[in-house]
Amino acid sequence: MACALVRSALRRKPPLQPAGADRRRYSLRSGTLERAIAAFRSVSGDEGVSLGEAVREQHGRDESVHKCRPPDVVVFPRCVEEVSALAKICHQYQLPIIPFGTGTGLEGGVGALKGGVCFSLRNMDEVLDLHQEDFDVTVEPGVTRKALNSYLRGTGLWFPIDPGADASLCGMAATSASGTNAVRYGTMRENVLNLEVVLADGSVFHTAGRGRRPRKTSAGYNLTNLFVGSEGTLGILTKATLRLYGIPESMVSAVCSFPSVQAAVDSTVQILQTGVPIARIEFLDDVMIGACNRFNSLSYPVTPTLFLEFHGSSKSLEEQVSITEEITRENGGGDFAWAEDEEMRARLWKARHDAWYAAQALRPGCKAYSTDVCVPLSCLPQIIVETKEDLMRNHLTGPIAGHVGDGNFHCIMVLDPDDPDEVQRVHEFTERLARRALAMDGTCTGEHGVGLGKRTLLREELGPQAMEVMQRLKATLDPKNLMNPGKVL
Amino acid sequence: MACALVRSALRRKPPLQPAGADRRRYSLRSGTLERAIAAFRSVSGDEGVSLGEAVREQHGRDESVHKCRPPDVVVFPRCVEEVSALAKICHQYQLPIIPFGTGTGLEGGVGALKGGVCFSLRNMDEVLDLHQEDFDVTVEPGVTRKALNSYLRGTGLWFPIDPGADASLCGMAATSASGTNAVRYGTMRENVLNLEVVLADGSVFHTAGRGRRPRKTSAGYNLTNLFVGSEGTLGILTKATLRLYGIPESMVSAVCSFPSVQAAVDSTVQILQTGVPIARIEFLDDVMIGACNRFNSLSYPVTPTLFLEFHGSSKSLEEQVSITEEITRENGGGDFAWAEDEEMRARLWKARHDAWYAAQALRPGCKAYSTDVCVPLSCLPQIIVETKEDLMRNHLTGPIAGHVGDGNFHCIMVLDPDDPDEVQRVHEFTERLARRALAMDGTCTGEHGVGLGKRTLLREELGPQAMEVMQRLKATLDPKNLMNPGKVL
Repeated sequence: MACALVRSALRRKPPLQPAGADRRRYSLRSGTLERAIAAFRSVSGDEGVSLGEAVREQHGRDESVHKCRPPDVVVFPRCVEEVSALAKICHQYQLPIIPFGTGTGLEGGVGALKGGVCFSLRNMDEVLDLHQEDFDVTVEPGVTRKALNSYLRGTGLWFPIDPGADASLCGMAATSASGTNAVRYGTMRENVLNLEVVLADGSVFHTAGRGRRPRKTSAGYNLTNLFVGSEGTLGILTKATLRLYGIPESMVSAVCSFPSVQAAVDSTVQILQTGVPIARIEFLDDVMIGACNRFNSLSYPVTPTLFLEFHGSSKSLEEQVSITEEITRENGGGDFAWAEDEEMRARLWKARHDAWYAAQALRPGCKAYSTDVCVPLSCLPQIIVETKEDLMRNHLTGPIAGHVGDGNFHCIMVLDPDDPDEVQRVHEFTERLARRALAMDGTCTGEHGVGLGKRTLLREELGPQAMEVMQRLKATLDPKNLMNPGKVL
Repeated sequence: MACALVRSALRRKPPLQPAGADRRRYSLRSGTLERAIAAFRSVSGDEGVSLGEAVREQHGRDESVHKCRPPDVVVFPRCVEEVSALAKICHQYQLPIIPFGTGTGLEGGVGALKGGVCFSLRNMDEVLDLHQEDFDVTVEPGVTRKALNSYLRGTGLWFPIDPGADASLCGMAATSASGTNAVRYGTMRENVLNLEVVLADGSVFHTAGRGRRPRKTSAGYNLTNLFVGSEGTLGILTKATLRLYGIPESMVSAVCSFPSVQAAVDSTVQILQTGVPIARIEFLDDVMIGACNRFNSLSYPVTPTLFLEFHGSSKSLEEQVSITEEITRENGGGDFAWAEDEEMRARLWKARHDAWYAAQALRPGCKAYSTDVCVPLSCLPQIIVETKEDLMRNHLTGPIAGHVGDGNFHCIMVLDPDDPDEVQRVHEFTERLARRALAMDGTCTGEHGVGLGKRTLLREELGPQAMEVMQRLKATLDPKNLMNPGKVL
């Protein structure tokens, strides 16, 4: 039905293009927006277009500390044809387009810096094509990872990429998300087979060709991975075809305490070296585990800690676990606290996933901001030790949690947003941390993306030549700079 | 020393730019090339520039049936500064640039369709930075996969991607190669962390920033994977940073015969579904196994066959093998022929890797050409059965070998190149095969790339919109269309 609506709307002549289209900020006063809104309504109906302040505010922020930058209008398309028609209107009026999934991003990626139109994709929430035997599925952009895994219940399959938040899968693709399972299953980069994309001019294409889903391909440029991680700056993702995995026969989780950061990280490196196919290996520093204890009424020793998870057959798990235990013991690790049944595992991982709230609870009323560097494994002990010293020296609260199997870790900075001195100190700390990672051949963002917050650091990381290549790609796919302007580059 | 040479050459003023730069084909007559060659010599010395017919012929062909298209001149740069200086000269004179690794490609990717300059990268053959603890290494473009694995001997690490030929690693990156181990370790797309690239204008950049090697990153657009698979049409790869893996404690290989294609492929799907982390699972049809028997004096039953390999600890192998045996038995598979020690394994895999020569030996004096489609797993039995019928109907010799864990398989077409009727029938057969794969949501190339041979099929596979996006990317990075012109797009 939605598509019939679009076709009829597209038959109507759009209003004339207004002058002054290169304005920095679009406002209701100019008349441009009113005409665009009328056109949006002809595509999506009154219920598909919202100007309400609360709705706009809700779509102008994510879970980061970046201030809310509400769009001028929020549209709620119901199908790709509507997305395309709405994008064409934006293109005609030169209005910025900001795609919006669940708003769970962490780098200010959805703020409407220059006003414009937020495309909320929540009404496009169908799981479209499940191919069980081929281990793949196609989803609309409103489908979240938890919704997909609910849908898959009973099939023996799952989508394991888990950034913590119940983000939309296309949003996860847009930020190249990963999370706790990446050490075993990879990131979104390795798990997206195809994307349907609407470009700034409203044209629609499929990065690997319509409906294609081979496990591997050498057919032309890897457009799929150009759009994975593009953070809405190249196009709107309206469908994603994803790899699925068989649910392992067994999973066991464990917690292990260590005398030092070095001992925990050395254990991690050795576990990976032996080829144990560990599914999760998460580091929490003493401050973080203390916060988790308080928040979840637990009593783990307050020392550097690893949360581990093993996936496989019962028999292979025995061996994985016994190798891992031997390595941790040799590094001075304590006894494993086990969780074998699903409820116990869920409780254990809840403690890890609640780290964000546990950290915030250290200072009620304060806000949290997560750093996100990633370095080669061997550099982890040094960077974590230096970072903890830096936090202490600057009287900052920043418990550390990390996906250490990938060399990726976060300081969850808890700060009083009304204390300008503290805000400044946090800002300077995060820049020092990122530069410390860069000095160790690492990156300023392992999984949160660049968004608003890391544009300067990105330039330092990549150098002017790679930045120029990115800018050329952006200019050729979005010559009017309408797609999520002011982000990434 | 090379770099000092370059700097001194660059200080000299280059000759003036000739007129008529948009010629289709560059020849020695115009004088342009002589001036360019003089400039090349000032950069790379006399020994770094070759005009000899034999050398040019050798650099104008790969291992495919595409006819030799020799370049006008071959240059042998010794460092990235030389590559950049030589590219700048080509850019100034608008001469095509064709990067050349080992010439082991299979789609005519190195032919100098419009003449121009072949950049042979064989003199840049150093392994530059091995980080054992971080499981990564950086190599120059002349380093082959076997040379890297020799270099790694004794470290406990290896680079497992194995397309059969001893290709250069940057060549493998350029064609997005994979091969027998991809089902376990992925393709080049998943295993390149960073690339140094020289663009058509001679500018140099690093896709993930100079020296960076985090295991994962969300820092800006994924330029690394834009250049992996670009087949020399976007830039020259002058360094690759690769992921390495711990050598498994044990490896065992086995051969198993089946009553039908369906039984072999059903076994494959079920093995993958149970989550057995199989390292190789290779299918050979009856014709192929018969050819292998004759070529290597073996006596495997002449029926559809799987070659399998398992990597892991001794204990985990026991379980992997017992699950696999149970599955194959239930599908009517015969007993496993085992190879546990390295020599036996090498002999077994030599039989598989010799498939190309074994096929050619079916018809001495004929040439071989390999098709390369990839489809979703569940479509494999149907496409293989239909393809075998097609071969029989058209009296063609095309034994089948495939990386069935990925849904990827090859018909090794053995044909008399002097029989125009047979050449035509092979051509029509391969197009039908590719279109059969496309009709099953698959791709016309799983790992060989597009090169010369599959440009029309690529357009059918991707559709005009995705092709246009690729063309726009090409035009923005190589506006003069100097990089390997006439390939891919």
